[in-house]
Amino acid sequence: MKVVIIGGVAGGATAAARLRRLDEQAEIIMIERTGYVSYANCGLPYYIGETIQDKGKLTLQTPESFRARFNIDVRVRQEAVSIDRAAKTVAIRRLDDGETYEESYDYLILSPGAKAVVPPLPGIDDPRIETLRTVEDTFAIKERADELLEAGKTNAVVVGGGFIGLEMAENLKQRGFSVTLLQRDNHVMPTLDYDMACEVHAYLRANGIDLKLGFNAVGFEADDERDEVRVLGENGEALPASLAIMAIGVVPESHLAEDAGLELGIRKSIIVDEQMRTSDPAIFAVGDAVQVKHFVSGDGALISLAGPANKQGRVAADAICGRARSFAAPQGSSVLKVFDMTIATTGLSEEAALRAGITCDKAFTSSPSHATYYPGARNMSIKTLFEPESGRILGAQIIGFEGADKRIDVIATAIRANMTAADLEELDLAYAPPYSSAKDPVNMAGFVIENVRDGLVKQHHWHDVNALVEQGAQLLDVRTEGEYARGAIEGSVNIPLDELRERIGELDASRPVFVNCHSGLRSYVACRMLSGHGFDCSNLAGGWRLYSIVAEDAAFDARPTHPCGVPLA
Amino acid sequence: MKVVIIGGVAGGATAAARLRRLDEQAEIIMIERTGYVSYANCGLPYYIGETIQDKGKLTLQTPESFRARFNIDVRVRQEAVSIDRAAKTVAIRRLDDGETYEESYDYLILSPGAKAVVPPLPGIDDPRIETLRTVEDTFAIKERADELLEAGKTNAVVVGGGFIGLEMAENLKQRGFSVTLLQRDNHVMPTLDYDMACEVHAYLRANGIDLKLGFNAVGFEADDERDEVRVLGENGEALPASLAIMAIGVVPESHLAEDAGLELGIRKSIIVDEQMRTSDPAIFAVGDAVQVKHFVSGDGALISLAGPANKQGRVAADAICGRARSFAAPQGSSVLKVFDMTIATTGLSEEAALRAGITCDKAFTSSPSHATYYPGARNMSIKTLFEPESGRILGAQIIGFEGADKRIDVIATAIRANMTAADLEELDLAYAPPYSSAKDPVNMAGFVIENVRDGLVKQHHWHDVNALVEQGAQLLDVRTEGEYARGAIEGSVNIPLDELRERIGELDASRPVFVNCHSGLRSYVACRMLSGHGFDCSNLAGGWRLYSIVAEDAAFDARPTHPCGVPLA
Repeated sequence: MKVVIIGGVAGGATAAARLRRLDEQAEIIMIERTGYVSYANCGLPYYIGETIQDKGKLTLQTPESFRARFNIDVRVRQEAVSIDRAAKTVAIRRLDDGETYEESYDYLILSPGAKAVVPPLPGIDDPRIETLRTVEDTFAIKERADELLEAGKTNAVVVGGGFIGLEMAENLKQRGFSVTLLQRDNHVMPTLDYDMACEVHAYLRANGIDLKLGFNAVGFEADDERDEVRVLGENGEALPASLAIMAIGVVPESHLAEDAGLELGIRKSIIVDEQMRTSDPAIFAVGDAVQVKHFVSGDGALISLAGPANKQGRVAADAICGRARSFAAPQGSSVLKVFDMTIATTGLSEEAALRAGITCDKAFTSSPSHATYYPGARNMSIKTLFEPESGRILGAQIIGFEGADKRIDVIATAIRANMTAADLEELDLAYAPPYSSAKDPVNMAGFVIENVRDGLVKQHHWHDVNALVEQGAQLLDVRTEGEYARGAIEGSVNIPLDELRERIGELDASRPVFVNCHSGLRSYVACRMLSGHGFDCSNLAGGWRLYSIVAEDAAFDARPTHPCGVPLA
Repeated sequence: MKVVIIGGVAGGATAAARLRRLDEQAEIIMIERTGYVSYANCGLPYYIGETIQDKGKLTLQTPESFRARFNIDVRVRQEAVSIDRAAKTVAIRRLDDGETYEESYDYLILSPGAKAVVPPLPGIDDPRIETLRTVEDTFAIKERADELLEAGKTNAVVVGGGFIGLEMAENLKQRGFSVTLLQRDNHVMPTLDYDMACEVHAYLRANGIDLKLGFNAVGFEADDERDEVRVLGENGEALPASLAIMAIGVVPESHLAEDAGLELGIRKSIIVDEQMRTSDPAIFAVGDAVQVKHFVSGDGALISLAGPANKQGRVAADAICGRARSFAAPQGSSVLKVFDMTIATTGLSEEAALRAGITCDKAFTSSPSHATYYPGARNMSIKTLFEPESGRILGAQIIGFEGADKRIDVIATAIRANMTAADLEELDLAYAPPYSSAKDPVNMAGFVIENVRDGLVKQHHWHDVNALVEQGAQLLDVRTEGEYARGAIEGSVNIPLDELRERIGELDASRPVFVNCHSGLRSYVACRMLSGHGFDCSNLAGGWRLYSIVAEDAAFDARPTHPCGVPLA
């Protein structure tokens, strides 16, 4: 059996190693366009930021080590240019001498990855505009960054606030650049909802990133005298940059598959079955270039992440060796460090659920990473999406510090098992003061959702508040006087929770009461108390904390808001 | 409705607060023997160690704050002495004046907890021997520790190597005591198997704890002149201690329930149904004093942990208020910090599975906490127990540093969902270099188990090695020459993995090959290669690393070993 693999990173490299472990006799050829295989592609920004200082760390596997261990014919700086499906051959060009040759295959595995979107804007070819994908890109950006810092030229602009955009913003900032981060949308991180992203915005600003939301770049202007490029906004702004990074997203690198007539899906991604087989049974495809089925929505999706790519490589190898195993639909679990903050998501966001036409409700909780009496605990914000009828968990977003990654993985596992909020309540998680609380943040999310679903408490949301204020609704704030004095919802009256029973007469029992505290816990207790006294009441989900974070974000650059309070892009 | 709650910590306090949230009108009385309610009982050792420096942190809730917020009649320093079930009254003694009075109830909730086992050994009443359960105990031990340190008397002996024993050993050591830790069994932490505990033993010794395993304390001898007590061992040793902590375990504090004729179970624990109702439908019981059903084994069990206690308090309150909800069987998820090490477990250990008569197999993996190219990654050791037929996960033990707590919670959630090893492979967990690897340690455990179950590789264990050596079996070590030179299995031959294909002729193909590397990964690749060349081979699970850790532990004090290599207690 002879297998040719196009692409030697993540999915391709995993497939090669697994193939060898399954079949000692197979002839395995791995073609890689760059000079490096199985490199640390998720680590590249950290080399530029000098968190990773040793070049060798990025490229732990070399063509030689791969060959020695797995007996794989690794050919770097070679590029597949066409596939002859009838003849079962692939044409390969050697980049060093431009010569092309043919290689036959019994099976072909495509692992071409995804490439950075580079929109055809005026001036986009300016050499000071870089994208980050390969080890070579990384060394080039690092070299330029070093030179610029040496020369005291520290204007950097990052276009795009997704994974790579945020990581580059952080790493350039830590190197000493003044970083402007441009985002066309109203929030960074497409995996987050706007309300959760607002906390990230405030944090980026607090860490010195000049964040411009709703910024639509329309072109670039060279200023060769100053060795700068100016990023031009639709709004007339011109932002000078000694270094500009384009990180507005990626698209499948599927021209080879397209030219070969393989079936394509969303954004020309490669359509595969559960064994990663394309529409040609002799050709498999894995990684960022393929369309997957989202575990939660069941819809086709593009998920450009290393975890699924690696698993797919394994599944493709198994299929080629006659081992029946299916690639399980991924659910988009992701995590990102930006400065000291952790941004973690799994499953569907509210925006994604809306787009998919899935009815969902949401709970906001704020929970300490570990027992508050043990030093070092910090709160994390959790937004959990659930099906109102069944209580099934659809997705979660966590913004925090220590332990946010842990809770997203627990919820990811729960989603995998089709667990409901009642199941989250019951999860028996490991507790000791340095690690968690007796009621873990994940249990807490379950409790809050079940209280809502059981009808113990009604909740309203940050995007309902402005309308309630305008209607002159009865708003009650049960925080302490000190907390209330530092900022509160317009028109709310303050009765601290511990005084509420004796001062209940101050409220109008004939009208609904909309209650808030800082995060939603004390106001829940207040709601139960008021319900016990016959009041119709509702709890502000996420409390003053969430409301004020969103309000501050919306006020930051006075973006217009739409009726439910979401600032427009 | 009038509810009396006996015990104001964990389960009792949770029940009280939930009751109030469900019923604003109920009369709720909470009786607590100590002076403190809802205190940080899991934080007590850290106050002695001065990690927690503020007394107030231990007692965030006060009787007054509880009363103000929840309108609960909290009575501290009072003790229930008897229950009259027919009359539905409980007799309560005020500790301050010794007076007893009666209180009627519609429902009674018992949350008496568990008490430290204090064996009736000669000299056990010596005032220098302490147990740790209450805030008062904590202050007393702290005060004595401070005085002793002031006086330069730093001999401390901790009897018992469970949760409290290890936490006390760490905290006393960090205060400056010379700590001897005595354990009657052959390993610390009853939740761990011996093989996993060996790594903890080495770590404790490296951190200056004088660990004595297989030490059976038979009595205590006062030396009032030196203000010391000597701990006497069955082996004749007499260990002087200025401070001795008894932490050999806990038993249910169930005399009240016993005297009232309630049905009792294991070690006189209180039998309850799924709503936490005792054999008397007006009496509920929660927390460390009740018998639970273990989620994995289905057997009755005692699990003295805060997480289940809190959940039980909630379930009891729900039941009393007519809300049908069952307490889900716990699975013994636990985590412990000792110095910088994390010891985490969930489900059954191998020893527990054997005791329960459950057939299980095991996998050992050693995985980095996060991508190795990103700074700060450290390996964690994972032992995963599974049902050989179905692949269902039965339990896991993790010894590590960063991220061990995360992986135990993911596996705990997977066990809850009755997941199999194939499910672990497919878990879509969040990856970025600072947090994990594209193949998370939990995925890796799944891969290894599935490779065994699929028949891709056979494995043998550390406890098989000595017999293989004696039989003169063909042992192959595929580590590098440098690794091999630093220590290897007796009689093994060294062929580094990357030379194995060309040197395969050095092996005898007519005999089985038993292969090892450092942790089991390279030797797995070697096994696949050898299988492809027709060899019958087997992989040493956990590799040289696990074998040498156990061997070193066994050699430490030359304990005799039983036939399968486990040193006897």
